[in-house]
Order: sequence, then C-alpha cells, then structure tokens
Amino acid sequence: MPRKKFPPKTAGSRLISAFPIAKVGDNIAVIERMLTEKADDFQTIDYVYVIDEDNALKGVISIKEIHSSKKDAAIEDVMTKKLVFAHPLTEQERIVYLALSNGIKSIPVVDKQKRLLGIVPFNVILNVFNEEVREDTFKFGGIFHKVGKEYTTIKASASTMIKTRLPWLMIGVLGGTITASIITNFENVLSTLLALAAFAPVLAYLSDAVGTQSETLTVRSIALDPKLSLKSYFLREFAVAIVLALVCGALLSTVALFGWQDLILGLIVGVSMFLSVIAAVFISTGFPFIFKKVNLDPAVASGPFATMISDVATMTIYFVTASLLLVQFGLM
Amino acid sequence: MPRKKFPPKTAGSRLISAFPIAKVGDNIAVIERMLTEKADDFQTIDYVYVIDEDNALKGVISIKEIHSSKKDAAIEDVMTKKLVFAHPLTEQERIVYLALSNGIKSIPVVDKQKRLLGIVPFNVILNVFNEEVREDTFKFGGIFHKVGKEYTTIKASASTMIKTRLPWLMIGVLGGTITASIITNFENVLSTLLALAAFAPVLAYLSDAVGTQSETLTVRSIALDPKLSLKSYFLREFAVAIVLALVCGALLSTVALFGWQDLILGLIVGVSMFLSVIAAVFISTGFPFIFKKVNLDPAVASGPFATMISDVATMTIYFVTASLLLVQFGLM
Repeated sequence: MPRKKFPPKTAGSRLISAFPIAKVGDNIAVIERMLTEKADDFQTIDYVYVIDEDNALKGVISIKEIHSSKKDAAIEDVMTKKLVFAHPLTEQERIVYLALSNGIKSIPVVDKQKRLLGIVPFNVILNVFNEEVREDTFKFGGIFHKVGKEYTTIKASASTMIKTRLPWLMIGVLGGTITASIITNFENVLSTLLALAAFAPVLAYLSDAVGTQSETLTVRSIALDPKLSLKSYFLREFAVAIVLALVCGALLSTVALFGWQDLILGLIVGVSMFLSVIAAVFISTGFPFIFKKVNLDPAVASGPFATMISDVATMTIYFVTASLLLVQFGLM
Repeated sequence: MPRKKFPPKTAGSRLISAFPIAKVGDNIAVIERMLTEKADDFQTIDYVYVIDEDNALKGVISIKEIHSSKKDAAIEDVMTKKLVFAHPLTEQERIVYLALSNGIKSIPVVDKQKRLLGIVPFNVILNVFNEEVREDTFKFGGIFHKVGKEYTTIKASASTMIKTRLPWLMIGVLGGTITASIITNFENVLSTLLALAAFAPVLAYLSDAVGTQSETLTVRSIALDPKLSLKSYFLREFAVAIVLALVCGALLSTVALFGWQDLILGLIVGVSMFLSVIAAVFISTGFPFIFKKVNLDPAVASGPFATMISDVATMTIYFVTASLLLVQFGLM
C-alpha cells in the first residue's frame, strides 16, 4: 500500500497500514493462521478487512467474530458487508463522529474506487477527539492553541500562556475602542437620560449570553455532523431566539420600569434588548456557518470574534433606539 | 461477579461483566480455547484479564499478544503486570483520562482488595468522553444539559431548547439588575465625567474575556487531571494575569488618553482595567476549584455564573476607582 501524503487534519493524514487484511475466498482458518503468524507486525487486530483482487474493500470482520466463527467458514459468509468508511480527505473530526455513532473501534479509509488505503485505529480516534475538543474549547475561550505535546495546559510555561492568550485580548481592545466611540457619539442621548448608562453593560451581557449559547450549539453541531441541514437548523434557532428575546426584553423592561420609575427608559431598554438578542443570535449562528463555508475553523469565529461584533451591534442598536424614541417623545 | 449499584457518573456505574477472564496457571492454549468457545458471550475480547484464586487482578494480556504468544506459554510469563485500573467510585471522566494517557481500550475496575469487579470497555469510554464534553461545553455556554438520547442538539425541539437556555439568562437578568444599580448609585460620578459610560462595556468585555480564558483552562485541567496541583496552577495563572492586566490596562489607557484627550479618564480606565482583570482571573480560576471541593460540577460554576459575579466586580471597581481619583484630583 503506497502512502501518499495527505493534508493535516484529514483522515488520510491519520492512517496506519499495519493491520490485518484478508482476501475474498479465504476461510477463517487461513485468517487465524495469518493472525498468529503476523500478530507482532500489526498495530491492531480489532478488525480484519477483506479486499478483492483489485484491493477494493468488500467487508470487515471483528476479532471476536473470527473467534466465534467455524474454522471452515468462507469469509464472505461471516463478514459484515455494510461498511462504515471514510475518504482520505474526510475531516478527522468526522472519524470521531463515525466511531461514536456506529460504536466501532477503527474506521477504514478508501479511495474513490473503494480501494483500501489504511485504517484510523482506536487510539488515534481517541486522540483526535481529545485534540479537537481541546482546540474547540480553547478557541472558544479565546486561546490560540498549538497542538502538540509541548503544549499541555498544565505544563505550559507562563510565557507560552501569555503569547497564546494576548492576541485575542488585542481584538477585544480594538472592538472595545469601537464600542466606546459609538457610545461617545451618542453623548447627547446619554446626557438626556443618564440612566441609559446603567443598562449598557446589562444589554451587552445578555446579548453575549444568548449569542454564546447559539455558538456553542452551532459549533458543536457542525463539528459532529458536517452534513447538518442549514435551513432547518436556522429556523429552529430563530424560533428559539424570538422567545428568548421577548422574555429578556419584557423582564428588563419591567426592571427599568419599577426599579428606575421611568417609562421611557423601560421602553428603550425593552425594545433594544429584544432587537439585540435577535442580532446576537444572527451573528453567532451565522458566523460559524460562514467560516465553515470558506474553510476556516468555525470555533475561531465564535468566542471573542463574534462577541466583539455582537457588542458593537448591541450598543449601536441601544443608542439608535434610544435616540429615535427620545426624539419621538419630544424629550430630545 | 455480583453487581452492586454504584452512583451515576462513577466507573462502577459503567461496568460490563461480559469479558474474558483467565486464571493464574492457565496457558495460552487454554485461553484461546476459552475464547473460541465463549466469544459469543463476551461483549469485547480486547483484553483477557488474569485473576488469582481470590479474584484479585494480577495481570492483563491483549488479544494481539495472545495471538503472537507461544501456545504453551504460561500466562504469568507473557501478561502485563503493571496495571492501569480504577475503583468503582472513580469519576467516569477519570476513565477517559486513563484510556487517553495510557493508550488502552478498556479500564478494569477493582475494589480495595484488588478484586476485579468488571471493566469499562472502549465504546463506553468514547461515549463517556462525548457526554462529558457535551455537558461541559453546554454548561459553559449557559445551557442546562439533559444527557440522554432524546436530547441531541440537532434533533431537540424548540421548546426543549428554550427550557434549557432560559434559566441561565434569568441569572443574567438578575446580575444585570445588580450591575445597573451599581452604576446608578454612581450617577454623580457619571455626570461629572460622561465619557466613563463609554468605557463601561469595554471594561466588562475585556475582564470577561480574560476570565473566560482562565475558566476554560481551569475547568478542562480539573476534568482531565483531578489530581492537579492547586498551588502551582494558581501561581502560574496569576503570573499570567498580571502581565495580561498590565498590557490591557496600558493599551486602554492609551486609547482613552489619545482618543478622548482626557488625562484623568486615561488614568481611571487604566487602573480599573488592571484591577478588574486581576479580579476576573481570581473569580474564574477560584470558582471551579471551590465548586469541585464541595462536589459540584466545575463547568456549572464557569460561564454565566462566574461572568455575572465578575461583571458586578468590574463595575464596582470601575466606579469606585473613578470616584476616588476624581475626588483626589478635586474634580468632584
């Protein structure tokens, strides 16, 4: 089996070739003898893969099934013909999904002619899962992540930690500067109704919270099922967003109304809370999908990046709504 | 093997008992015959576990090693005696850690007398990993999570989604109300220096960002290595925090100084940014550890809960710093 070089993070880049292969026509006794003679050469003997004369994958049999089959049984009669497999350019996280959803230990990788190129074995699958989870979680938290043994969270040096965490905070400073400029541009609105300042962080926080929930769900759904139906996913997410936006808007409006005894404040806070939750969900559900489309990692889009965009949007919505309503009521 | 009932989420609750066991004194031929005769009864034959007359676990041999061993070899001479094992009350996520760090497919579970109670097999380990990851990620994003097949993110109904996401947002509304009250109580500070309002969301955002990074690292480190050294972890985290706080404080101070042409604003923003980053790291590193100590899930402590506390702290630091400095400079 000649090994081509496949891009990193694909099934092809994770292949091993030291595993047992049988030919159509072999019987169980032949396979058992082969296993006994060559067991030392194999990295794993969880499954024996069965190929035809063109190297095309025809079936698979587990070591357990080999032990429980009659010695003279033809392999075609006892092997599983319904195959789970990946292609060399399949993303490595898809392998985890296949192993999880089918409860199998290795995934065979085949080319377009269904010729067997190798398998991704159990220990690689578990490691890929760990890498992907660590990466997604860290990107989500705004931590650039170098995968490799030199970088485990517990052992990494303080300077490595600073170098990986600081870049995202710089994006935050940039976004924050934009947010601050927006608020300053509405200084006349603020001086008309100073209490608006009190609710600015609340609005930013709640929009972010709803956005983070949407991101978490979207990034994970994309990661585990790359064939996710975009349309039905969006539709449900927006039905949910409208309810959440209504509840948050109504509650915050009530708080402003009773706590601050200000009708117009209550109205501004309620309306802009509603609108900015919708905007936040739109941003944080849409971004991962867009990033995926242009082949960037959805987890990068989430966390700090989407939060920044969402914060700018929230503050713009808040102060534009406030301006419009204050003018409408003849207060400004 | 009598099965006791163990608490959920422990290794004991994940045991299977249909797997091959050999006795000290058996040879390879005996074991192979046993495997062939009983393969159908076993759920997995990845490893054969070797016990003595008291049921105490003495060794383990992989199916691959069985195939490559001489038929007449005594099991004691070929088995691995350095054992990786768990106890029935070991947390299930520890099993994932053991499998990952040792590259093995099943983890045997033994009682205090080292008697073999069962094993946690490969497919259960992969599922536990998936459950734990899903749970941690979702709790992190402020989504209550029911584990079970009826609840997968893609298939869940809109109403399930609302029910799982709304509770955390309510905590946000509560925290937001507290934050808003704090700001309102400093209305005289705000009216003295209106530009302070522009930087309130920025400070909240950056403190949250640093806090989220710390949480991500802490929750994941605790999950994968429950024996994590608290002291050295804290020390490194605080060294990192001081540098990040200095950089963020200096940058934001520069932005205020040049963008807003206000020396006192620059000073207030810089000092309070520095202090609130330190506070955020303290809160988001400390909370998961405290939650762990009292046996609550660290992932719940993170995300929305720590963010809320951290937001309140940030606003208090900001406006107290502003008051003190404005009074100090005779401006209020």
